[in-house]
Amino acid sequence: MNIAGEMVRILGKDRVLDTKEDRLAYAFDGTMLSGVPDVVVFPQCTEQVQEVMSFANREGIPVFPRGAGTGLSGGSIPDGGIAMVMVDMNKILEIDRENLLCVVEPGVVTETLQTAAESMGLFYPPDPGSLKACTIGGNIAENAGGPRALKYGVTGDYVLGLTVVTPEGKLVQTGGRTVKNVTGFDLTSLLVGSEGMLGVVTRSTLKLLPRPETARTALASFSSVESAAEAVSEIISRGIIPTALELMDDVTIRCVENYVKMGLPLDAGAILLIEVDGPASTVDEHIAKVASACEYARATRIEVARDEDERDRLWKARRSVSAAVVQLNPTKISEDATVPRSKVAHLVRRIKQIARTYDLKIAVFGHAGDGNLHPNILANRRDTGEMKRVEEAVDALFEAALELGGTLSGEHGIGLMKARYLRKEAKETGIQMMRAIKQALDPNNILNPGKMLWG
Amino acid sequence: MNIAGEMVRILGKDRVLDTKEDRLAYAFDGTMLSGVPDVVVFPQCTEQVQEVMSFANREGIPVFPRGAGTGLSGGSIPDGGIAMVMVDMNKILEIDRENLLCVVEPGVVTETLQTAAESMGLFYPPDPGSLKACTIGGNIAENAGGPRALKYGVTGDYVLGLTVVTPEGKLVQTGGRTVKNVTGFDLTSLLVGSEGMLGVVTRSTLKLLPRPETARTALASFSSVESAAEAVSEIISRGIIPTALELMDDVTIRCVENYVKMGLPLDAGAILLIEVDGPASTVDEHIAKVASACEYARATRIEVARDEDERDRLWKARRSVSAAVVQLNPTKISEDATVPRSKVAHLVRRIKQIARTYDLKIAVFGHAGDGNLHPNILANRRDTGEMKRVEEAVDALFEAALELGGTLSGEHGIGLMKARYLRKEAKETGIQMMRAIKQALDPNNILNPGKMLWG
Repeated sequence: MNIAGEMVRILGKDRVLDTKEDRLAYAFDGTMLSGVPDVVVFPQCTEQVQEVMSFANREGIPVFPRGAGTGLSGGSIPDGGIAMVMVDMNKILEIDRENLLCVVEPGVVTETLQTAAESMGLFYPPDPGSLKACTIGGNIAENAGGPRALKYGVTGDYVLGLTVVTPEGKLVQTGGRTVKNVTGFDLTSLLVGSEGMLGVVTRSTLKLLPRPETARTALASFSSVESAAEAVSEIISRGIIPTALELMDDVTIRCVENYVKMGLPLDAGAILLIEVDGPASTVDEHIAKVASACEYARATRIEVARDEDERDRLWKARRSVSAAVVQLNPTKISEDATVPRSKVAHLVRRIKQIARTYDLKIAVFGHAGDGNLHPNILANRRDTGEMKRVEEAVDALFEAALELGGTLSGEHGIGLMKARYLRKEAKETGIQMMRAIKQALDPNNILNPGKMLWG
Repeated sequence: MNIAGEMVRILGKDRVLDTKEDRLAYAFDGTMLSGVPDVVVFPQCTEQVQEVMSFANREGIPVFPRGAGTGLSGGSIPDGGIAMVMVDMNKILEIDRENLLCVVEPGVVTETLQTAAESMGLFYPPDPGSLKACTIGGNIAENAGGPRALKYGVTGDYVLGLTVVTPEGKLVQTGGRTVKNVTGFDLTSLLVGSEGMLGVVTRSTLKLLPRPETARTALASFSSVESAAEAVSEIISRGIIPTALELMDDVTIRCVENYVKMGLPLDAGAILLIEVDGPASTVDEHIAKVASACEYARATRIEVARDEDERDRLWKARRSVSAAVVQLNPTKISEDATVPRSKVAHLVRRIKQIARTYDLKIAVFGHAGDGNLHPNILANRRDTGEMKRVEEAVDALFEAALELGGTLSGEHGIGLMKARYLRKEAKETGIQMMRAIKQALDPNNILNPGKMLWG
């Protein structure tokens, strides 16, 4: 079977890559995992996606849909077959101000949509760390979050409807253009976060909000993670839901300060970056309440940004975390453990203990407000002894998250990386239910096989 | 097969009803439909639900789960088999202030949960019209909405995790206690709104919010529905998302005024009840903006409540709608068409035309802010000629909603009432996908058979 030839017939010569170099270029995502596809294709419209899927389903060839490849769970890694790259379907088809929605193709870069919405006085809240590169299609496949999820929710909270090509090449329209829709099973939500295993999204209708009037940002330092966690609880118990409530532990602070030299307190046990948004009349009151809650939790220093420049400077600390931690260490294993908010300090304590047990350096940062932490293990992948310890540490980490009432993944997904842990959380009956759905909708196991449910 | 005897063995004598009178009492919901079960059971715990389901699955006996029976789409109507009434599993097991969540059994009455949350400074937003009677389990099964959905979303937006008994009697735990969770397919969202066809919820973990500080309410009158719809668009384009934005048309106004005598303008074409909530520092500003948007849309009268008593008085107009419209007419066919917000005036115009065409009285009211209207056809079910015209009018109504880019149901569900319209919206491929899921999770078609997908 000449798959590439068939793909050229469907898509045209310019939209098919099959040299070894090109195939290698599409073997990766944001993890250390890789898998080389037999052919790489770039569909331009829904009909082409349907034709590719019909062909693949008929011939039993696996298809691995992907966007920009920034995923952090291996959700889009191919294993032979067809890598279907959706980035050329990248049009914002409509922004409807009156109905507060937009219709976009899956290859639209998240930041591009945000900018387009903002230029019309609107707001698309989901803000994954990779928003300058990642695509809406990938965000939907992994149900991506971001700092603003605390107040505004994750990608799935903004998906009103989807145009989806099924594993057999049929077209299904889920949801619609209304905020409320209870017509039939909620296929939209089932597809969101299904990691490209149940269908290929070729168009989505997304909810927008009016752009918040303004925002205020504060950076608070604490002698310990416990105090920072206490501040988080205190802020929320005072009735404030900040837009972002970002935590960095001591290891992260030192990495960031070493990288950006912005005067972060090197003796702090933790810092919190806190942002509130809303009408001008409330944000000052809210940030004052935030500061007072931090004082109550014995913050050692509280800075409130007085203008946009200062706000940018404070955010710089958070935004440079990923770059800063890889600066010192060639390999970064970025994890995504989530616990109920009240258990954040417990989880950080457990992570520090794991770091000592396995003699590893772990930087902990993330979205403390919704309990979603990103422990980043800093290592060197050429050091096989260290990588063995990393593996054991990751096992211990998920054990800890689940023990604390948490989940394996808050926003990165399961993909390949966490497939072997899924049974611990979903149990055998949950996995059976998920497999029954996969089998029902993709009887020939064509779409993104081997992920999530087969750990 | 002595089903009742088997039920008594599993549940005990006190928890099984099988006299004709008792079975008839559980044959109804909030619609005109009915279907008599062979036996009525009242489980008290998850294990009993599992035993009932295992037995029913083994013996091929259909099970119809239900709560308070206030549903408006026939979603819980039995057809022989076992009516499983969940109202005795009615404990609020936990309210966790720090993590802003609660854990409840399915029989908890919605208002009971709201009151309990409020007493702790918290807020459970979903507020279906029947909140004094309906249960959380039913709200989850139908993904119930309510006036506050405009700002706060529907029931599904608050469901973090579910304990579910599968049609085969197995136990599945979906989601969890974290706001972010992307571990596996989103079974939680698939189950929400699945009308008891995929599993029986025996426990749910629900998100709560801090209680909003205060609220302001206004009632604005307009000479036409078009002006009222313009006010709706204008309010939202000024960046305000009210908690509620409720519309009543002229027919509804006259019914309500006749019933409560509160001085509503009988010459108005439409009135809007508008509420904003939030910090004390912003609600005054927001209600002023709302009033100004209404003036811009040529409101003929605007009343802003000055205190809690006045606020109650304004809400009384909206709250008495259902009682007021049945006062004059023995039979009320309550519909639930939803269109994009910008099409609300179009839909109302189409409904008025349908009323003229079929010589029917239709009161239109509902949640204009999210395009979710409830046209209530006022008739007499003993008048067969009229009921025939009602049927045709309902057909025309859904035709209109779909033509305007809307959906068959915003918050009442499909159940039996709208099953025959589902194909128009979901298309054959969508129904196939839903049926494949039903078949995969309930291979013997035990749970609530004959609903939604078989119209």
